[in-house]
Amino acid sequence: MKYLVNGSLKQMVQELLMSGNDRKLIEFLHELQPFDISTLLTEFEEPDQLKILALTEPDIAAETLEHLDYDEQYRLLDHSPDEVTRSILASMSDDAVADLVMAIHPRQAQEILRRVPKEDLAGIRLLMTYPDDSAGGIMSLDYIAVREDWNVSRVINHFRKVGGKATVTNYVYVVDPQGRLAGVTSLKEVLLSNPDTLVSDIMYTKIVSVPVDAHQEEAAKLLSRYDFVALPVTDNDGRLVGVIAVDDILDVIEEEDTEDIHKLGGSQPLDEPYMSSSLFDLVKKRIGWLLVLFIAEGFTGNILRSYEDILAQVVALTFFIPLLTDTGGNSGSQASTLVIRAMALGEVTLKDLAKILWKELRIGAVLGLIMGMVGFVFSWVIGGSQAVALTVSITLVVILVVSSTIGAVLPLIGTRFGVDPAVFSAPLISTIVDATGLLVYFAVASRVLKLG
Amino acid sequence: MKYLVNGSLKQMVQELLMSGNDRKLIEFLHELQPFDISTLLTEFEEPDQLKILALTEPDIAAETLEHLDYDEQYRLLDHSPDEVTRSILASMSDDAVADLVMAIHPRQAQEILRRVPKEDLAGIRLLMTYPDDSAGGIMSLDYIAVREDWNVSRVINHFRKVGGKATVTNYVYVVDPQGRLAGVTSLKEVLLSNPDTLVSDIMYTKIVSVPVDAHQEEAAKLLSRYDFVALPVTDNDGRLVGVIAVDDILDVIEEEDTEDIHKLGGSQPLDEPYMSSSLFDLVKKRIGWLLVLFIAEGFTGNILRSYEDILAQVVALTFFIPLLTDTGGNSGSQASTLVIRAMALGEVTLKDLAKILWKELRIGAVLGLIMGMVGFVFSWVIGGSQAVALTVSITLVVILVVSSTIGAVLPLIGTRFGVDPAVFSAPLISTIVDATGLLVYFAVASRVLKLG
Repeated sequence: MKYLVNGSLKQMVQELLMSGNDRKLIEFLHELQPFDISTLLTEFEEPDQLKILALTEPDIAAETLEHLDYDEQYRLLDHSPDEVTRSILASMSDDAVADLVMAIHPRQAQEILRRVPKEDLAGIRLLMTYPDDSAGGIMSLDYIAVREDWNVSRVINHFRKVGGKATVTNYVYVVDPQGRLAGVTSLKEVLLSNPDTLVSDIMYTKIVSVPVDAHQEEAAKLLSRYDFVALPVTDNDGRLVGVIAVDDILDVIEEEDTEDIHKLGGSQPLDEPYMSSSLFDLVKKRIGWLLVLFIAEGFTGNILRSYEDILAQVVALTFFIPLLTDTGGNSGSQASTLVIRAMALGEVTLKDLAKILWKELRIGAVLGLIMGMVGFVFSWVIGGSQAVALTVSITLVVILVVSSTIGAVLPLIGTRFGVDPAVFSAPLISTIVDATGLLVYFAVASRVLKLG
Repeated sequence: MKYLVNGSLKQMVQELLMSGNDRKLIEFLHELQPFDISTLLTEFEEPDQLKILALTEPDIAAETLEHLDYDEQYRLLDHSPDEVTRSILASMSDDAVADLVMAIHPRQAQEILRRVPKEDLAGIRLLMTYPDDSAGGIMSLDYIAVREDWNVSRVINHFRKVGGKATVTNYVYVVDPQGRLAGVTSLKEVLLSNPDTLVSDIMYTKIVSVPVDAHQEEAAKLLSRYDFVALPVTDNDGRLVGVIAVDDILDVIEEEDTEDIHKLGGSQPLDEPYMSSSLFDLVKKRIGWLLVLFIAEGFTGNILRSYEDILAQVVALTFFIPLLTDTGGNSGSQASTLVIRAMALGEVTLKDLAKILWKELRIGAVLGLIMGMVGFVFSWVIGGSQAVALTVSITLVVILVVSSTIGAVLPLIGTRFGVDPAVFSAPLISTIVDATGLLVYFAVASRVLKLG
């Protein structure tokens, strides 16, 4: 009863399909959620898929398709009987059709648009004009709008007429004769009010809305900040043009967080899930940063070559190179990850730069002292000489202070110049810190060991 | 009009406060969102804060408090006049009060509970028994429940009576005489149906629900997968005990993603936002991994020491140590981050192990060939000798294959043994890959350079 998607579900549908008892199968499908039907579909071959789809109510079938890849959506719609395709398309929301049509080949798109009810075409064409990742790109056109001089009973009647297609039913939007958003009230408020109450008496007029050309992340931030279930979208003249529902925002948040995480891992964000990304795609998304970092890291080669004499004199210094550069990289990546996430959540901005710098300076110092002590003992045991151990431990203190502050501050400074903070990933920070660490190491070494 | 929180808002409230025109201030506050009032509060001193709170409608004031830290909530409630505190507490949802009471000192909690309406105490005490991060810990008790033999007009009457306090109004839950969840329908469906229609005719009976003791992440997954606006919570006997709204889930997703990102950055997840975390806390969360990785990385010191002779003979080999280890770390962290994120999104599980291994083997080979060629030219220029360049470039190919596969496969194998995948962060992968890389380097070097 609780978690529906499992083997037995597939088995039951399989038995119903083989028995040929369509009525029973219809009843069974009627009780399933669109997501479950979409999972089911992936477990059958095409003839069964088409049968299941045809026996599902069109509005449920429409939602089912939205859980599948665009290629899958097209294939199923294209191979279904014409009347099934038409009724599913008629039940799909305009934004779902617009997304599908933009994702497939233009010739295939034509095939789809030919079967869409004529009255939906204008809306779909409008939605197709907004970029994918803009507020307009994720909004729906199916909201409920009323006038402020209506009374509650008229609103309820209006709802009974148009509410069936609405994707967002929590809020009732109030528009003026020019279509400008004038207020908002909730269906709950409407139901709890006296039938004669005027809309103007139960509406909020200071509305939080998002411009149609804003980035989808902006919409996500507003929705999650205000705990709304939906957000109205307005054009430049303040006209209500659509509404963004919170479940679309869940997808946006997932998408944006995934992008950030990929960048933090030192890869270009993938356009598709990892498993369905092609080998070529994955190589393309990864090789760029690898090369850039390789070239940047090349500096360390130059630094080491310029200290060739010292290295030849005290080979033991070599033993600690990976240890020192890695520790710097680790503490730098800790600091940058914490700050980058805080920036993404809006907890930290450029104006906190000085405060963060001061905080990380102190944290770096404390971490450095602890690591310096541990490092001294450790390198004494491995390196054999007290002077080398002293060099390592002094270097550790400096490296931890430098890497913590650089790691925390670079993402902040980057935004000042329009660089996405998530680019200051662990790999980039390590690379920057490595060169610094080696310079410190040899500067300390030449003094402590009286070399050079 | 669009983005409310800005300087002018503070200024307007300040003027209204100084003018002493309470009526106007009440009207002004009435038009603000709880989040905006909470932002406003942070910009005033306590006397003004208390005045603003007292002049805000209790239900809005209650929601306003939820946007503040628990310490702040307590301070404002404690310092407000008794009747203001009581009316705000009466308007707060039971789960908000439970969260507050559990977060503050037990003696302070007593002070708060003393002022909570008696009829709310049972619910609050119940909610306090569930762990913070369980479904029970984030659910609300204010849902709408009806019986299946009621008709639509009775449901609407019931809604008018109890709907005012409900946090979730999209769904109407159907329970049997024992309180077991028997079905669910939507308020929209109710409104669109004939007044005589029975609830049993418009309800779904295959309900997706979450057990009260499930982890909050489980609830988040179900909600986002099914695109629901709320999810019912049931106890072991299938009784409806609460409901989780999607806006609470937004917070959960944010929290879980933040934890993952912190771990990926090589730090223990913070319990509080970065800026409000104390120095001591930040050091504590970061030093652990730094030390573990330092000790692990110690192996590289041992490896290098055991090749002391080779290093003394060909100092140029030293130049490429940071370059090689870092490149391995980078490609390993790319692979692990991509796989870890795919696991978090449920796209990849342990059963895909072989497929992923094969994929990453090939990706590693392609990346290795490209980097090997670049590395050959580069190290020839820096290192001076063709033999060293050949050593570096062969090592690069091996390192990229090894690091890509290790990076991708370790998080998957880890889950098999109950290790959180996000622990296989860039820093840990680099450390593991470093030792491997050095061993390969010297194995290749001793053959190519005929040393040892």
